[in-house]
Amino acid sequence: MSPPLPVALDAYGADGGPELVLEGARLAAADGIPIRIFGPSGLEVTNGIELDSTTEWIGNETEPVAAVRSTPDASVVRAAAAVAEGRCSSLASAGSTGATMTAALFALKRAQGVHRPALAVQIPVPATDRPPLVFLDCGANTDVRPQHLIQFAFLGSAFSAAVLGTESPGVALLSVGEEQKKGRPDVVAAHEALIDAEGIRFIGNVEGRDLLSGEADVIVTDGFTGNVTLKTLEGTARAVADAVRAAARSGPLAAAGGLLLRPALGGLRRTMDPNAVGGAILLGLRGVAVVAHGSSTPEGIANAVRLAHRAVSERAVERTAELLATSGARRDALRD
Amino acid sequence: MSPPLPVALDAYGADGGPELVLEGARLAAADGIPIRIFGPSGLEVTNGIELDSTTEWIGNETEPVAAVRSTPDASVVRAAAAVAEGRCSSLASAGSTGATMTAALFALKRAQGVHRPALAVQIPVPATDRPPLVFLDCGANTDVRPQHLIQFAFLGSAFSAAVLGTESPGVALLSVGEEQKKGRPDVVAAHEALIDAEGIRFIGNVEGRDLLSGEADVIVTDGFTGNVTLKTLEGTARAVADAVRAAARSGPLAAAGGLLLRPALGGLRRTMDPNAVGGAILLGLRGVAVVAHGSSTPEGIANAVRLAHRAVSERAVERTAELLATSGARRDALRD
Repeated sequence: MSPPLPVALDAYGADGGPELVLEGARLAAADGIPIRIFGPSGLEVTNGIELDSTTEWIGNETEPVAAVRSTPDASVVRAAAAVAEGRCSSLASAGSTGATMTAALFALKRAQGVHRPALAVQIPVPATDRPPLVFLDCGANTDVRPQHLIQFAFLGSAFSAAVLGTESPGVALLSVGEEQKKGRPDVVAAHEALIDAEGIRFIGNVEGRDLLSGEADVIVTDGFTGNVTLKTLEGTARAVADAVRAAARSGPLAAAGGLLLRPALGGLRRTMDPNAVGGAILLGLRGVAVVAHGSSTPEGIANAVRLAHRAVSERAVERTAELLATSGARRDALRD
Repeated sequence: MSPPLPVALDAYGADGGPELVLEGARLAAADGIPIRIFGPSGLEVTNGIELDSTTEWIGNETEPVAAVRSTPDASVVRAAAAVAEGRCSSLASAGSTGATMTAALFALKRAQGVHRPALAVQIPVPATDRPPLVFLDCGANTDVRPQHLIQFAFLGSAFSAAVLGTESPGVALLSVGEEQKKGRPDVVAAHEALIDAEGIRFIGNVEGRDLLSGEADVIVTDGFTGNVTLKTLEGTARAVADAVRAAARSGPLAAAGGLLLRPALGGLRRTMDPNAVGGAILLGLRGVAVVAHGSSTPEGIANAVRLAHRAVSERAVERTAELLATSGARRDALRD
């Protein structure tokens, strides 16, 4: 068996700058994951990390498609090319989500029969040992047709089974009620088609409150609703956590209470921390691409690299292709 | 000045049954709000509360339009009729949201020029003295056109100014990014039209995380996204609160900490409690209709009655009509 290929890691775009990304790379390299980092020549790489130096990169403010086309030396474009050329196994970036998705799509191409790749995040299920919920699409496609939602269901199911080890994942559609006829017309149409779909365990509609309830292993929605929902979840968790902290500063007795409670609350903080899951993964490509939060800590970067590496070693792309081919979802989509 | 008309209160449909609704009615009646309750003849009404007895009601499992049409003696239909006939000031119900909206729409009719009434909730802004955020549409319209979003902006702005006393409310569209071009086509089109709209202070797009950030006084979205988002917010707040409680039960030191912290956390619990705001209000009708949570406590019912009464005394319907007439939003909508 040949040694694994390195993960192509974009050093630019994280709020903490290339040095923070390098620190994250070191944490992942310590696990034995080989990494090729695309960033400034000044980065002092160590054991298990190689540097591909470039000073160009694409920021959040630029229109991604034009920028990716016109900046072949941008770090994320070079990193994606290295994956396409077979020199790296997968792509990870904490830079512009749009640029990372565009560079990955252009270089890695869509998987056979997939019309729209989707961005999936993992959301931990509080107070359980269950694998995290796979939630998609979180923003790749703001406007979808029923066929796209159906494909997202297969993409999410294959990822949950292959990478998270979920046995026969329960897949649900996000809607405004559990009844089959509830929701927008595209959701109702996707629901009807998924009832009879082969190769997937469709459990019906779930509502917004079920993102943390553990009802489903995979929840599917369009990229507009998914993005708004995910940010609402993150914003609410942060607001409540802030309020608990503020309460613990409101007086000496409360402060003592906060101190005593802190160790027990550590688990909650880790559960709700986006750094714990390493970011979003773009599903439906012929390769693996992971988008980390711009605000990632070094541990968040390391987890993004670990996620990319694990998706490759668990053959997520190949297993997704097999599921799509045998299930008929690809055939349905091609009719689209 | 003639004495105020009673609020028409549906006694059926709350999880706690008619007796719980009556208990809520008593709390509101103690504030001097006259109430006519529509429920079983056995209810023992007291000072300030009148009973209109009926044994028929519409549950959550029935298709609302057919049920409202075919059950003239259903409590919510009778209550809505009493408002339309001028015997009551406004409608409040903790029963089926669909049945309440349908009964209100049929009996009270849409306001002039309004195409789609919208369901608005108030979301408290944590750790401030600011009026709550007005968030709409939370489920009346799962599929909208840009003109509807524009009208929702005016409906929300008028409600915030008239009922909550917000001076020149800042109105935002919910989207996937702050830039004007971000979002679904209907959101982008509504954004463009709202920039030049008169009579409203449009502040642009906000994201899911801004529902609790205090960025806007009014946030507008379609009823599908709004319903999913609101339930995500409620579910996340509950999950985090549950986790804090579980942490405080995890050992003797943590339990002591939880006890010491509890008084300071009471404010948070009150802030996140849906009973505190009394439910959702249906905007865009020629009358006032309030939908309370099915799981309302007596205090939640009382707050729904208070909200209905306040919307009438602050002339919310009349002031909304004036804003729509002067702003041109009605004219635009009629062109639709």
